[in-house]
Amino acid sequence: MTDAATAIAAAATRCSNVGRWGPDDVLGTLNHIRDADRVAAAQLVRTGRAFSLSLPYSADGPQRGWRNRNNPVHSMLDTGLDAENGTQGFPHGIGGADDFVAMPLQCSTHWDGLGHIFDHGRAWNGRRAGDVVTSRGDGVTGIETVRGLLSGRGVLLDVGRVIGDGQLPDGFAITEQHLTETAAAHGVEVRRGDLLCVRTGRLTRALDEGWGEYAGGPAPGLSFSTADWLHRTEIAGLATDTWGCEVRPNEFDDAFQPLHQVAIPHIGLFLGEMWNLDELAEACAEDGSHAFWLTAAPIPVTGAVGAPVNPVAVK
Amino acid sequence: MTDAATAIAAAATRCSNVGRWGPDDVLGTLNHIRDADRVAAAQLVRTGRAFSLSLPYSADGPQRGWRNRNNPVHSMLDTGLDAENGTQGFPHGIGGADDFVAMPLQCSTHWDGLGHIFDHGRAWNGRRAGDVVTSRGDGVTGIETVRGLLSGRGVLLDVGRVIGDGQLPDGFAITEQHLTETAAAHGVEVRRGDLLCVRTGRLTRALDEGWGEYAGGPAPGLSFSTADWLHRTEIAGLATDTWGCEVRPNEFDDAFQPLHQVAIPHIGLFLGEMWNLDELAEACAEDGSHAFWLTAAPIPVTGAVGAPVNPVAVK
Amino acid sequence: MTDAATAIAAAATRCSNVGRWGPDDVLGTLNHIRDADRVAAAQLVRTGRAFSLSLPYSADGPQRGWRNRNNPVHSMLDTGLDAENGTQGFPHGIGGADDFVAMPLQCSTHWDGLGHIFDHGRAWNGRRAGDVVTSRGDGVTGIETVRGLLSGRGVLLDVGRVIGDGQLPDGFAITEQHLTETAAAHGVEVRRGDLLCVRTGRLTRALDEGWGEYAGGPAPGLSFSTADWLHRTEIAGLATDTWGCEVRPNEFDDAFQPLHQVAIPHIGLFLGEMWNLDELAEACAEDGSHAFWLTAAPIPVTGAVGAPVNPVAVK
Amino acid sequence: MTDAATAIAAAATRCSNVGRWGPDDVLGTLNHIRDADRVAAAQLVRTGRAFSLSLPYSADGPQRGWRNRNNPVHSMLDTGLDAENGTQGFPHGIGGADDFVAMPLQCSTHWDGLGHIFDHGRAWNGRRAGDVVTSRGDGVTGIETVRGLLSGRGVLLDVGRVIGDGQLPDGFAITEQHLTETAAAHGVEVRRGDLLCVRTGRLTRALDEGWGEYAGGPAPGLSFSTADWLHRTEIAGLATDTWGCEVRPNEFDDAFQPLHQVAIPHIGLFLGEMWNLDELAEACAEDGSHAFWLTAAPIPVTGAVGAPVNPVAVK
Repeated sequence: MTDAATAIAAAATRCSNVGRWGPDDVLGTLNHIRDADRVAAAQLVRTGRAFSLSLPYSADGPQRGWRNRNNPVHSMLDTGLDAENGTQGFPHGIGGADDFVAMPLQCSTHWDGLGHIFDHGRAWNGRRAGDVVTSRGDGVTGIETVRGLLSGRGVLLDVGRVIGDGQLPDGFAITEQHLTETAAAHGVEVRRGDLLCVRTGRLTRALDEGWGEYAGGPAPGLSFSTADWLHRTEIAGLATDTWGCEVRPNEFDDAFQPLHQVAIPHIGLFLGEMWNLDELAEACAEDGSHAFWLTAAPIPVTGAVGAPVNPVAVK
Repeated sequence: MTDAATAIAAAATRCSNVGRWGPDDVLGTLNHIRDADRVAAAQLVRTGRAFSLSLPYSADGPQRGWRNRNNPVHSMLDTGLDAENGTQGFPHGIGGADDFVAMPLQCSTHWDGLGHIFDHGRAWNGRRAGDVVTSRGDGVTGIETVRGLLSGRGVLLDVGRVIGDGQLPDGFAITEQHLTETAAAHGVEVRRGDLLCVRTGRLTRALDEGWGEYAGGPAPGLSFSTADWLHRTEIAGLATDTWGCEVRPNEFDDAFQPLHQVAIPHIGLFLGEMWNLDELAEACAEDGSHAFWLTAAPIPVTGAVGAPVNPVAVK
Repeated sequence: MTDAATAIAAAATRCSNVGRWGPDDVLGTLNHIRDADRVAAAQLVRTGRAFSLSLPYSADGPQRGWRNRNNPVHSMLDTGLDAENGTQGFPHGIGGADDFVAMPLQCSTHWDGLGHIFDHGRAWNGRRAGDVVTSRGDGVTGIETVRGLLSGRGVLLDVGRVIGDGQLPDGFAITEQHLTETAAAHGVEVRRGDLLCVRTGRLTRALDEGWGEYAGGPAPGLSFSTADWLHRTEIAGLATDTWGCEVRPNEFDDAFQPLHQVAIPHIGLFLGEMWNLDELAEACAEDGSHAFWLTAAPIPVTGAVGAPVNPVAVK
Repeated sequence: MTDAATAIAAAATRCSNVGRWGPDDVLGTLNHIRDADRVAAAQLVRTGRAFSLSLPYSADGPQRGWRNRNNPVHSMLDTGLDAENGTQGFPHGIGGADDFVAMPLQCSTHWDGLGHIFDHGRAWNGRRAGDVVTSRGDGVTGIETVRGLLSGRGVLLDVGRVIGDGQLPDGFAITEQHLTETAAAHGVEVRRGDLLCVRTGRLTRALDEGWGEYAGGPAPGLSFSTADWLHRTEIAGLATDTWGCEVRPNEFDDAFQPLHQVAIPHIGLFLGEMWNLDELAEACAEDGSHAFWLTAAPIPVTGAVGAPVNPVAVK
């Protein structure tokens, strides 16, 4: 395929949820989660073992400075050495440490908010991009609007393990068929309202070999052609262990993240990036159960178009 | 009471968990949570309704600059206006917004890590404060060490509602008796491994009347005398709707957060501050059920002594 | 006067330098400084005594959070305590301290750049505001474009001392007559290319009494009516000891910094704010000489619309 | 030489200025500048041409993340697009842009403060490192203490041009002989109180070829053996066009910046790094005059151990 613009426009038309939940909607596919789904999902907690799916937020992270995306700078405002030194100015022997962070909101494990990506100047639900996100932040779909909603049934599709040899190679485009084959192999069904985690193994490789071009470079990922499936399955969110969910290089010439351009402004889909699915995947492979309780509550920075999250799966 | 140092030393001796989980322990009271507790807690999900207990992270927050604790500065690296302007340099009509934050890690809803408070130069489990937290961060008990553990049974004690008239006045010291009376009124039992939320109503007042001196000023809160109860009940974490958990002014002359000095380095207790319990409290009052599933997973900033969290309760 | 818009439009027409230095100009009134002026100004160095006109950049600064304008957060990445602790990882006994800052660029003593203020969507020299400053910064008149130019003849008009009793009261509007009377009293002439410093005494009061509403609150300052004089005198820059150069409250109803709206986009004038002129003023009063060598070189943050500066006068 | 520690200790003894200006001194070699020197230096202004010696502060800078030294993140709090959009909330057609920076204080052109480097836990003038720099910053020799002093006679030694072929190769150690030969070739004398600029050409190469390992990698620079000359000449400051002044790799095995360890805590010398001397060097070569007026006033961040500076030379 070489004409990205035409393909994107066609997919956008086919997969549009714009207007589906009314003109004022700010929740997008989170509308797919119903309270009853959470009740059912809670029953998936059988052993009580919990798994954080978050990478650390660290100076040793994957970022390389593209468009100001640096790794976090974590600095101390007070330390244990200061406490020992006795110069903190506190009474009765109490001492304290305190700290500060300066970071892009999407520097490590995060959710993309609905204000993160636009299609020809249009944001989610048909709004003008400039009516949604100004220098004051996202005044409409800021991540704080969904702060209580991102929990429910989580499903892991370990495509890296089922289709690949633990890891998919860079440039491998995961198609609908790969997804359904993986689900079948796992014996798990992808349902409306799911928070779907797709493991490619790309992160495993980065953790073994060093970050290299993990941020923005070649990677396995979802094919552009999965847009219809993402729409049809009515999942609430999609998260992967890669920098940008999509296969890279992208499948069109001169393209940049075309699936995002359909998924966010047209489907209203929440995308999670740089999730560490390895420990969970190991446990799922062991017990054969790929559905679990998942809470992935973003830090509600007012007006944010993306937000740090420490997703926790419990099985 | 006027001699804080003596009282602190005595309480520290009575309530110490130092060494209880071995010399290398970094989890403190999170050791009280067992996987089986999570299985039982998941059964508390009956309606599937979810509640975020997080305040926004916002420039309009409570901070007043004390010891560099400012409110977050959230700035945009790209906006919808830039996308509309067509100067972002992306192909095929895709546009994007991106953002950055600079903030103290304890500026809004957060967990204190075990490296946050010291007693006479000693951190949790008897370690030298300076062996734990240097300018490189907390190399031992950094918040990332507990990133997967903070989920399980949540319990709300709405002391503001049961003992007060919806809100407790500033300076009101909540004693063990207030806590047990509130639990009895709710018909809920506080158990080993619980993540206990104590609502004073102080935040309700701040949200009504403006932040004022919410950060560091007078507030209702736990009496120093509850240290023994906090230890004895074997709760895993304690969170309140106030700036600093403890009653303020503190109950000793010339004192500063004496309960912290016992709770963190000696009990190893995780303290949550500035949690918004109001919506949850309303729902608990309505359905009469004060126990629920709670996930409160901190953002794992490597080496952090405190961390942002968006706690989500599901009933 | 009540109609700000009309008055601004009229002054803009009267005082416009737009196009004066060609369509590509990015220097504005810095065009008024000629190399020969610097040669002459250097002759003003007679005692060699140097005066910094900068306030500290400090957490104890004047900012109150308006539109994200906080005081700087200065944090340490390494300290002397870490060096003493011997855990920095350096050889042969070398130790180091290092630091980080997060701050608005106009939080303390600074220059406004030409991209800082617009009039009805127009920036300096008639350009579209959105063609000049996007989320990528000021791509046309970013402060780095003038990084070598801000030195030359400095002149102090100590209006606070000559017209007031050391300090002018808040709300005092300094008119052209006050300026010329002050110059006459000093025996100094304001010339083309001068970097003009106007002292009101407002900062003296703030340093005595605390910041209070120094940032954005009532203050003495230039009357809107001085626009013509600022234009006619062909000064290169104007700096004051106040938050915003202009008298506050502004002289129109429902107005906000109307003189800025003429001075920056139409005159192309560089405005300096929060300069500490007190020590210099004292020395000028003593020796009776109010002209001096002045270097006020902004930190060239690429694309910045304002920048920190430590101006140094030498007499 | 292989024994760095022994060589450092010997040089420290030979070159020590500790105590020379009394026990309370915080100025170090800035004591060498006298007001009369500034009067003489002002006479060096003959053409009035001014040269900024500062690199931009930019995301495209040389930093690579070593010990949290990232490039600056400059973000916009308001833009021209927002002004055009008419949503800024200001009256009468005024619009504004505003900005924020988060950066290490030594990320681009800067001065090292006297609190930046320690020798075996000792800071400048024999003080305990931990008595000088804690998490609260440098409470003794913070850069604000010298905010008015860094102006006077500047001298350029263009060693890259005189000894090299415009540029010195990486690893080239500049000795006293190279310095004196260069001065002789220029016909310039290095005097007490000078702010000495040494050009190696390393920056020229980086600007041509890309930053690569400019920050911390191999570079020409001053030999450790120049410590005595730096002390004996009684210069006030030394600045180079390299990351770290000293030749790299350093001249000892397993060494890190040994000349710093003598220069800062023992000589009390102000070191400037990453200064862009190219345009000035060109002009000096053309007119044959290598002495000039130099103002290099650091931004006085309270308690900083290093600080951004935009040095301006005028000839």
